[in-house]
Amino acid sequence: MSDPSLVIVGSIGIDHIETPFVKKPNQLGGSVSYACAAASFFSSPGMVGVVGDDFPEEFMELYRGFHVDLQGLQRAPGQTFSWTGVYEENMDNRQTLETVLGVFETFEPTLPESYLDAPFVFLGNMHPGLQLHVLSQIRAPKFVLADTMDLWINITRDELIQVIGKVNMLTLNESEARLLTGCHNLMDAANQLLTMGPQFILIKKGEHGSMLFGEQGIFIQPAFPIADVEDPTGAGDTFAGALMGYLAKTDSCEEADIRRAMVHGSVVASYGVQAFSLEGLQAINASKIDGRVSALTSMMQVDL
Amino acid sequence: MSDPSLVIVGSIGIDHIETPFVKKPNQLGGSVSYACAAASFFSSPGMVGVVGDDFPEEFMELYRGFHVDLQGLQRAPGQTFSWTGVYEENMDNRQTLETVLGVFETFEPTLPESYLDAPFVFLGNMHPGLQLHVLSQIRAPKFVLADTMDLWINITRDELIQVIGKVNMLTLNESEARLLTGCHNLMDAANQLLTMGPQFILIKKGEHGSMLFGEQGIFIQPAFPIADVEDPTGAGDTFAGALMGYLAKTDSCEEADIRRAMVHGSVVASYGVQAFSLEGLQAINASKIDGRVSALTSMMQVDL
Repeated sequence: MSDPSLVIVGSIGIDHIETPFVKKPNQLGGSVSYACAAASFFSSPGMVGVVGDDFPEEFMELYRGFHVDLQGLQRAPGQTFSWTGVYEENMDNRQTLETVLGVFETFEPTLPESYLDAPFVFLGNMHPGLQLHVLSQIRAPKFVLADTMDLWINITRDELIQVIGKVNMLTLNESEARLLTGCHNLMDAANQLLTMGPQFILIKKGEHGSMLFGEQGIFIQPAFPIADVEDPTGAGDTFAGALMGYLAKTDSCEEADIRRAMVHGSVVASYGVQAFSLEGLQAINASKIDGRVSALTSMMQVDL
Repeated sequence: MSDPSLVIVGSIGIDHIETPFVKKPNQLGGSVSYACAAASFFSSPGMVGVVGDDFPEEFMELYRGFHVDLQGLQRAPGQTFSWTGVYEENMDNRQTLETVLGVFETFEPTLPESYLDAPFVFLGNMHPGLQLHVLSQIRAPKFVLADTMDLWINITRDELIQVIGKVNMLTLNESEARLLTGCHNLMDAANQLLTMGPQFILIKKGEHGSMLFGEQGIFIQPAFPIADVEDPTGAGDTFAGALMGYLAKTDSCEEADIRRAMVHGSVVASYGVQAFSLEGLQAINASKIDGRVSALTSMMQVDL
């Protein structure tokens, strides 16, 4: 296996999920699981993460099925990170019932040599100190995307601002953008975030799609509409993982390619939410992705 | 003035609006006011509506400034319809404090002869019995759009279903589509509404834009992003009015033209929400509209 051109770090979790329709315990989850599986349709990503000694071998097989480079995956004594959550009837809101950090609490990875020259880096949602620690090891990254969440905005704001100052693109959802900047209006929030370092701000809006803010202006990416959403867990990680996989494949960080990458990210995420865990992604291939990419661009098409 | 190719019926109101920033009493409002002003950039619409004997002459002047055909505007003894509402801090939600029906309660218009051959008809949000009464007078409509709201879904469902069976396009917002069909998922709701008669269902999603469902599939129209929203009142009427004005101008009901019409509708609405009442629309012209149409299509542009 050649050195990965894309390195992704984040959480690996065992999720216990309840939707209005079904209860699913012991699902493989975590930001890096979704992101690596999604990226793998375009580029073989190198995974950086940690699992406990309870991590089932079948989940390792799942990763291998996606041709994920697992040299950066550590196994440590203790329990794998775990998340238990319930989705409300409309599937838009969810409640966290329990989070067990387990081995993720003391995770401080040393990256394998083969990852250190990776041009593309995706710092998945986790403690910003850990994001900085990983990024500091990459020698000359060309394009770095960081994700975050409300927890880090609230309790580790200073370190998060350091991360934001070092990345090319920051992604977060609408309410997080408002929380971080104090601006209710999304345009104001994005413009303020652009002054903090990144060339691009990518606002995730769930079923309403996403918006890219950059020097060349705004790009508005609708989500691929899905009637039968089974489980929205990991949709944002899937979207961002596919986006970075696409960029790594094209070896570009031009805005036109980022726009194309967002279309592909939206499509891969649409397959992801149609089943639990990585099952939606296991069921697809390049030709299925191309089919929905073509359908989605038709839904965005207007000729003046 | 030649006979109008577009007839619009709806409410004419005197609005008392409070936002987190300002209180504005005695604003000209109502669905037909917004819709006619918005349509007027593309086509001179014929207005069907009623005002009381308290209706100020300056508001009549406003209509004339937009070159609206006022032959279908009636004046009746009594009070003009009036709405008092407060917007919450985020401007997304609003509360109705008072609605005075006034002369609108007994409104049952007989259309002027010059309106009866109009090919394009917009039945603005009002009692569906009244929508049917107006539509029955038009001799051979080519394309009819109907709007509605939760109130009519709840209290006049049967008559509303009659309206839906007679129009080419139905527009409503997300929660209304769910209320009317019982489907939470928007795709399911739209598909069910398509079986009730219309060729097109246009779902309004506020700041998230709109979605068109039809035989040829789905079109997803983002809203033109606005940082300085002053007053969202009438945005949906403005959007739909401009859309119908554009279609009347092109004399088409092809989906490609409807898509273009939606882009124009989104742009005109974006100007509308930047000021109270019709002030945002008074400040623009064709060249300003073209500027934002071009900007918005750039924000939607992706080349595969």
